[in-house]
Amino acid sequence: MSITKFKLALLQIAVGVSKAENLLRASRFIKEAAEKGAHLVTLPECFNSPYGTGYFAEYAEQLETGESCLALSAAAKENNIYLVGGSIPEKKDGKLYNTSTVWGPDGGLLAVHRKVHLFDIDIPGKIRFQESETLSPGNEFTSFQMGDVCKVGIGICYDIRFAELAQIYARNGCKLLLYPGAFNMTTGPAHWELLQRGRALDNQVYVATASPARSESSSYVAWGHSSVVSPWGEVIATTNEKESIVYADIDLDHLQQIRSQIPVTHQRRSDMYEVVQKKN
Amino acid sequence: MSITKFKLALLQIAVGVSKAENLLRASRFIKEAAEKGAHLVTLPECFNSPYGTGYFAEYAEQLETGESCLALSAAAKENNIYLVGGSIPEKKDGKLYNTSTVWGPDGGLLAVHRKVHLFDIDIPGKIRFQESETLSPGNEFTSFQMGDVCKVGIGICYDIRFAELAQIYARNGCKLLLYPGAFNMTTGPAHWELLQRGRALDNQVYVATASPARSESSSYVAWGHSSVVSPWGEVIATTNEKESIVYADIDLDHLQQIRSQIPVTHQRRSDMYEVVQKKN
Repeated sequence: MSITKFKLALLQIAVGVSKAENLLRASRFIKEAAEKGAHLVTLPECFNSPYGTGYFAEYAEQLETGESCLALSAAAKENNIYLVGGSIPEKKDGKLYNTSTVWGPDGGLLAVHRKVHLFDIDIPGKIRFQESETLSPGNEFTSFQMGDVCKVGIGICYDIRFAELAQIYARNGCKLLLYPGAFNMTTGPAHWELLQRGRALDNQVYVATASPARSESSSYVAWGHSSVVSPWGEVIATTNEKESIVYADIDLDHLQQIRSQIPVTHQRRSDMYEVVQKKN
Repeated sequence: MSITKFKLALLQIAVGVSKAENLLRASRFIKEAAEKGAHLVTLPECFNSPYGTGYFAEYAEQLETGESCLALSAAAKENNIYLVGGSIPEKKDGKLYNTSTVWGPDGGLLAVHRKVHLFDIDIPGKIRFQESETLSPGNEFTSFQMGDVCKVGIGICYDIRFAELAQIYARNGCKLLLYPGAFNMTTGPAHWELLQRGRALDNQVYVATASPARSESSSYVAWGHSSVVSPWGEVIATTNEKESIVYADIDLDHLQQIRSQIPVTHQRRSDMYEVVQKKN
């Protein structure tokens, strides 16, 4: 019998200036989620460091040797879960990246996603942020296979604004898209939920986001509201701005029902258009 | 000085079984919208005929000689407006199409869109509809130029579910997408607004829909709620299910501001992916 349903947990943890405390907090929340039956657990973007171009270099680690990855690997193994390590500032070959690592129940590294679309926006009087001042972009699509249950596509925060990434993941068989992300107090209320619901409905996949909890004293104030959206485009689990865990059942039979009811996956006009993937 | 702002009107008219009455009603509403200053006026999907596979053959016309197109051409010229004639059942070379015609202020035919994605869905206990039982699909993208003011892309109803159509229109320079459409009482509340807001935000364009008014006695009960969404993804004008006209200012300076604040149009990773248009 194949498994078609599993529990997803989004850890909306508070992130402070102490990396050691951030890692301990993450481990504690991961354990709690696993004890509640989660098979797949996701941390937020930049969970080991405050979010801000002034912090990335100081908190950055190499994946192979950094304490954050060691902690994630251990937590995945100890709790026998699939773990998406939100993201951390990574240093590699003299460059900095915003990087998500994915760990299997044996503690092995399954995938690495380096944020492809850097967060450079400028809304006068509201928010200006330029990740590209310090970070380099990744250049690869990233998905992983949760055993034989479900293929999962990964994006980080601003990556969600680009429909093509989600389209390619879905065409490649991903049925769940995970976006660790930290939207802000301007784009959060305006776009956070809309983008998730749009990606989910357009591609008839589950979409989930994991944000840090809001801290009003941070230089970058996160919107929170980690959520799970069904392939029908409906928010099936969410929270407010506070520290919390969001749980949802990912039901692949339900996904298939929706795809047979409104069969857009077969009705697309591939004779007229196509979303082309130019590299791996 | 170039014009960067114009008034759009969506005519959410009631549609009955008398084609003559439907055409008179359309003409009356067009005149009212033009008198209120609309430069671009849009009728709903299937505005001259009840919506249903049992009606299409009976109400169908040839574009060149049909009374509906004659009425639309005359109305555009008399009122000195751009007119998107929602859609009508069209007969052509022994086939039937769901067809939208676009008319200029001189009464000339500017564009013809034949619904590309036929509405075939089956949600048990809710709604089953199979346009393909009687209609043939169009095979072309359709846009038109409103003088030197704005390029406009056209889709009909179910076409809005396919992100690629909107992506290609936007990449080709359309800044307003118009979807005459008649969603129903199941997909209307679930998806009508979400699809419009998603298309608008993802492509940073204006999106508008024009539905027939709801008639509970029809075999197909339309959702109504004709709306205009800004490039920020915000509903800027809408209505309920009743007969009404929705007005909105399309502000191309505002669109450019949004595009410079969140510059996704330049940030797309064309080295990694591309939405390819395979035919005209």
